[in-house]
Amino acid sequence: MEMNIALLPGDGIGPEVIAQAVKVVKAVGKKFGHTINFEEAAVGAAAIDLTGNPYPDATHEVCLRADAVLFGAIGDPKYDNDPKAKVRPEQGLLEMRKKLGLFANIRPTFTFPSLIHKSPLKLERVEGVDFVFFRELTGGIYFGEPRGRNEQGTKAFDTNVYTKEEITRLARMGFEAAQKRRKLLTCVDKANVLATSRLWRETVQELAPEYPDVKVEYEFVDAVAMRLIQWPKAYDVLITENLFGDILTDEASVISGSMGLMPSASVGIENKLFEPIHGSYPQAAGKDIANPLATVLSAAMMFEYAFDMKAEAQAISDVVNKSLSEGIVTEDIAEGAKAYKTSEVGDWLAENV
Amino acid sequence: MEMNIALLPGDGIGPEVIAQAVKVVKAVGKKFGHTINFEEAAVGAAAIDLTGNPYPDATHEVCLRADAVLFGAIGDPKYDNDPKAKVRPEQGLLEMRKKLGLFANIRPTFTFPSLIHKSPLKLERVEGVDFVFFRELTGGIYFGEPRGRNEQGTKAFDTNVYTKEEITRLARMGFEAAQKRRKLLTCVDKANVLATSRLWRETVQELAPEYPDVKVEYEFVDAVAMRLIQWPKAYDVLITENLFGDILTDEASVISGSMGLMPSASVGIENKLFEPIHGSYPQAAGKDIANPLATVLSAAMMFEYAFDMKAEAQAISDVVNKSLSEGIVTEDIAEGAKAYKTSEVGDWLAENV
Ligand SMILES: CC(C)[C@H](C(=O)O)[C@@H](O)C(=O)O
Ligand SMILES: CC(C)[C@H](C(=O)O)[C@@H](O)C(=O)O
Repeated sequence: MEMNIALLPGDGIGPEVIAQAVKVVKAVGKKFGHTINFEEAAVGAAAIDLTGNPYPDATHEVCLRADAVLFGAIGDPKYDNDPKAKVRPEQGLLEMRKKLGLFANIRPTFTFPSLIHKSPLKLERVEGVDFVFFRELTGGIYFGEPRGRNEQGTKAFDTNVYTKEEITRLARMGFEAAQKRRKLLTCVDKANVLATSRLWRETVQELAPEYPDVKVEYEFVDAVAMRLIQWPKAYDVLITENLFGDILTDEASVISGSMGLMPSASVGIENKLFEPIHGSYPQAAGKDIANPLATVLSAAMMFEYAFDMKAEAQAISDVVNKSLSEGIVTEDIAEGAKAYKTSEVGDWLAENV
Repeated sequence: MEMNIALLPGDGIGPEVIAQAVKVVKAVGKKFGHTINFEEAAVGAAAIDLTGNPYPDATHEVCLRADAVLFGAIGDPKYDNDPKAKVRPEQGLLEMRKKLGLFANIRPTFTFPSLIHKSPLKLERVEGVDFVFFRELTGGIYFGEPRGRNEQGTKAFDTNVYTKEEITRLARMGFEAAQKRRKLLTCVDKANVLATSRLWRETVQELAPEYPDVKVEYEFVDAVAMRLIQWPKAYDVLITENLFGDILTDEASVISGSMGLMPSASVGIENKLFEPIHGSYPQAAGKDIANPLATVLSAAMMFEYAFDMKAEAQAISDVVNKSLSEGIVTEDIAEGAKAYKTSEVGDWLAENV
């Protein structure tokens, strides 16, 4: 098969980790007889520096042409503490999500036995943790209007808004995923306070009878923030709105002890994007020390979710597991043993796939 | 001194734990020669059942007359899964906060050596944890207008809104607390996405020079959700908006392993309210098994914050510590040893204060 992949390395360590994923994807292509074409484009602070726009039209066109997008990371500290900055890299990210219609952010949390001791939680709480968040990604308070300031600048406001349609399409993905997993769906909301959350809960309640094999639980976001730490094994599939998802998926990411390895997918009807959940980690940029495994595993998700190629995805997971057990890893997880460079890990994975 | 205390037991285990706090407060009054008058009023589901209103005017008047309010808990499962319920107990809570002007919710997280092993986190991560959240409590998306649905009911919306004034008064409390503690203030926001958060950050940046001895850090809410678990010792004082505070303070509450013991204060210019952070725990209601220590420690906070009586507050902390070390505790923390009833713990504390 021929596939066209857009590469959006972005900022910080983005370019380095994407480069390793490309090596692995090429190796998989060779092994399985696929022709894989790559087209690279700028995004984030990198794109602001080049064009003044964090998500240039040219980049959008590259994404539209592609069958899937592999994304690195976005964010540069020089924009973070300037609340008055006119253009911010993150705006590019949000615009990209919106324009590509990536309404569902899929974030699995699972454990690697060799890394579980790095979890801040006690072993008995994390062993066997395996859940996945479906975070709504193109609605809610991230995009609602009106937003801004009053004339004097002394009052600011944001609008959280959801339609039944937006909730339904995200919830259906969650129900379907639950059917293929342990058949438990948790709807996370704040229905005791927010009108939007009440619409979420009501919509999910209406859909539930269509999925009689799925048990549905409704929990408040504050309760989930607690229970995720207390007993993360209780969860299977969680669905939630954009802002709650932002907070909870990040909280979830530290549970397994393998944050540097966690992949994610952001999907819509037409387009699909894959990215590591870690950030741009600017302190490490250019040093060839960043852990590329989350991006490599995001490429595995790409084979599975964008091309329905399970064997190819499995080949990548397998070689990642092999690198872990043989200690071909970067310094963040080397634990005193020899640490390999980002590029060395990428080379090794590509050779051994 | 003569003090007038309003008692709002509320729902679930509220009445039982408040009853124990009253015993202890009376004993302290006797010991230190204070005349303490109590006036009780209904709130929450209990008040709906009585009057149809979760925060009746009569209750509000009792609170206004009092020097301080001792509050139990609110919430009844019969209202939780009915998104169309017209009156909900939580509305009473929100109305009470608003009408009493309780704009700052103060939530300390600290550890009890005898309970730290109950933390879901590894010992080295929680030993010595000691931070305090100042959560804005009467603004933001909890109260912003417009909120509701479109005519067809297919679209819902909420408004997050903050004024510079609201941010300033909360932030000043945080700065002042930091000055008396380890001099680190963390402003938690989502300034890379929300207009309200940018106003928060800007306002705090403007205030910072007035507190030159306090180091100020700005962190995104998603990053704090992670770092609270990874390295909670990094924090001293955290300030944040209403919704982020709701999620993060609940997340924080499970860190120390002593959730059943954590007190809180909600204060404004005129009024001050003290309550345990745990909920109404309906499954345990009426069984005389609930842990009263969080409510008793909330009474200690009341002596300190509402009456500036440090010795009285200390006397309560001391007797609570004594009950812990002598094992006069309820079943949730008895660990296989003899468990005492809620009322027995209260009696013991009152006798030994
Ligand atoms: C960078 C930021 C705008 C973004 C978000 O809040 O969605 C990030 O935190 C994420 O989760 O991808
Ligand atoms: C019950 C609910 C409305 C309330 C809140 O969200 O403020 C509770 O979670 C709390 O934190 O006191």
